[in-house]
Amino acid sequence: MSLRLGLVGLGTIARAQHLPAIAATDGLTLTAIASRNATLAGVANHTDLAQMLGDVDAVTLCTPPQGRFDQAMAVLRAGRHLMLEKPPGAALSEMALLEAEAARQGVTLHATWHSREAAAVEAARDWLSRRSLRATRIDWREDVRRWHPGQDWIWQPGGLGVFDPGINALSILTALMPDARLVGADLHIPDNRQTPIAADLTLDAGHPVTAHFDWRETGPQTWQIAFETDDGPATLSEGGARFTAPGIATGGEDREYPRLYARFRDLIATGHSDCDLAPLRLVADAFLTGRRHAAPAFEDHP
Amino acid sequence: MSLRLGLVGLGTIARAQHLPAIAATDGLTLTAIASRNATLAGVANHTDLAQMLGDVDAVTLCTPPQGRFDQAMAVLRAGRHLMLEKPPGAALSEMALLEAEAARQGVTLHATWHSREAAAVEAARDWLSRRSLRATRIDWREDVRRWHPGQDWIWQPGGLGVFDPGINALSILTALMPDARLVGADLHIPDNRQTPIAADLTLDAGHPVTAHFDWRETGPQTWQIAFETDDGPATLSEGGARFTAPGIATGGEDREYPRLYARFRDLIATGHSDCDLAPLRLVADAFLTGRRHAAPAFEDHP
Repeated sequence: MSLRLGLVGLGTIARAQHLPAIAATDGLTLTAIASRNATLAGVANHTDLAQMLGDVDAVTLCTPPQGRFDQAMAVLRAGRHLMLEKPPGAALSEMALLEAEAARQGVTLHATWHSREAAAVEAARDWLSRRSLRATRIDWREDVRRWHPGQDWIWQPGGLGVFDPGINALSILTALMPDARLVGADLHIPDNRQTPIAADLTLDAGHPVTAHFDWRETGPQTWQIAFETDDGPATLSEGGARFTAPGIATGGEDREYPRLYARFRDLIATGHSDCDLAPLRLVADAFLTGRRHAAPAFEDHP
Repeated sequence: MSLRLGLVGLGTIARAQHLPAIAATDGLTLTAIASRNATLAGVANHTDLAQMLGDVDAVTLCTPPQGRFDQAMAVLRAGRHLMLEKPPGAALSEMALLEAEAARQGVTLHATWHSREAAAVEAARDWLSRRSLRATRIDWREDVRRWHPGQDWIWQPGGLGVFDPGINALSILTALMPDARLVGADLHIPDNRQTPIAADLTLDAGHPVTAHFDWRETGPQTWQIAFETDDGPATLSEGGARFTAPGIATGGEDREYPRLYARFRDLIATGHSDCDLAPLRLVADAFLTGRRHAAPAFEDHP
């Protein structure tokens, strides 16, 4: 019997990634959505989450992290399984309560990190596990006007700013090096905004790690992690889709979201949860300990 | 046999609180200190932590949280028990590594929150546990020039600013209400500083909670938590030393640090650790999600 899935929030990421991934996943059927404005043909359309809960066994939240807590708690309290688009929440303290409620209800809580499912991450992990690392450098440089047009929430308190894409890099980093800890950070915050437009991080993972997130890159877009090892250099590029090392060049098609939904289905089937907060913890640490620098005002339409 | 204890950092808090508390605790003997500048009569004096570790069974770190990680890890890796003055570390990601190392070594890690040991906290918890809470309001207002003269580290990134005293209030709050989560924050940061001089927090603990931290209070100094309950108002004041409620007025002498050391000794004896990060998590959440406001420049000597 197929699990009945409901989706909350029908924005860009839901339409581009979640809908096709759900359609491609055996054992899951989208039966309902909840959205204040949007509707979808062929499923039950609700404007309210509470109404939707009667129609489904499991729910995915694709809404922005600010204010998501009440929705997440309502899903869990109704005894429904819950999948969270990244970042899983606005604050670490709320995640602790969601984990406790999921355990109490005996339902699955899946905090997803889609970049961990990129095509070449597993190959990188395997290759690196047999080498000694000397240095790691993350470069995540993109044009915010191109990738987040008109998304005001990313600039609001709790919206994470450049850490919204940067947390994808940190999710890959912590998959490869679970012991990475934050040492220091520089945060560049536009005068007219609340969240950073660029950030430089120093981390320690038994070897030095730096991360450079920048939303002002109008040239080539870069999402890569470069490794120096005792066996030469290696690079995980294209957001994790491609891995190159001495004698190796591997990649594959983008199956990030289908893999997340297959995992959600399997977690439910086996009665497990997966809620790794390490990426969000590193971001919180960067805000907690980072040095703030004033950056020029930023406008969506210059 | 008495446990041999070493102290790292011989600043104000160490001399005012730790030394007399250790002297008053059965089963613990201060045998060594490590300090770059200060010395103490009657114990082994080291300038270096590594040298001291051979002389002791357990270590207390009273150094500022920034840069404390390497010291803490050195203590644990040497198989010594570790007690941490609050805040336990500069970042949440480093605390996860310390917890894992303590477990690996089979030693005690004690992240202390001295305000939880204030004389009337237990009475407040007991009374409140039998009432229904409607609202909680924290006021923690003090004069930074009086309590932190010349302490530059509190203004540096990771120094927490007004959250350095404020985390004491949050440590009491989370002892009374472990499920408190951060909803929002306003952070007032002087133009010439990196950390807040004042902060207003909104929390949820099944009922509304607000917290008001201010370092600019030159009048009466206030460290209190006021509760509205179905049985009338109650107040935990004087930093937790005094509790008043209908028909109740209780308090007692200050035994915060002797109680911490007795607990450290007992944790060691029973092979347990105590590392509750809830107060630091709320502070990190406030930095992560808080709205920043510019405040006038602050000088230690106006």
